[in-house]
Amino acid sequence: MSISKERILEYKKNFGLRVRELRESKGFSQLDLASEINVEKTSISRIENGRTNVTLVTAVKLANALGVELKNLFEF
Amino acid sequence: MSISKERILEYKKNFGLRVRELRESKGFSQLDLASEINVEKTSISRIENGRTNVTLVTAVKLANALGVELKNLFEF
Repeated sequence: MSISKERILEYKKNFGLRVRELRESKGFSQLDLASEINVEKTSISRIENGRTNVTLVTAVKLANALGVELKNLFEF
Repeated sequence: MSISKERILEYKKNFGLRVRELRESKGFSQLDLASEINVEKTSISRIENGRTNVTLVTAVKLANALGVELKNLFEF
């Protein structure tokens, strides 16, 4: 049973909101987080707005920078 | 504080082992799982052997096919 495009979009959005939530609770700006994982600020903005199909490696770097376990990024 | 290449490789390996563990507990072959998410069997093999930087969308499809929540794929 395949999964709809709408559901996949929802996952991207929820992942982005989760990153934003964790970033803000850490008191990081998008620029802070971007420089921690060596990407442009726009990349963080796109991730948080659900417009990026992030990879496992980027997720690992985000979790490391945010000081959380990888699975915490996917708790939504 | 950036994360080492070795640590990133470890995450890929652990993710792969987790997918294999869940697949086998579901009684799926690699071919079964591959057809469920519309990829080649070799893609599943590469994922399980830690040789792929999987994307969020692929992870969502894997979780859906394996009947688990997305975060369960990252519990390792």
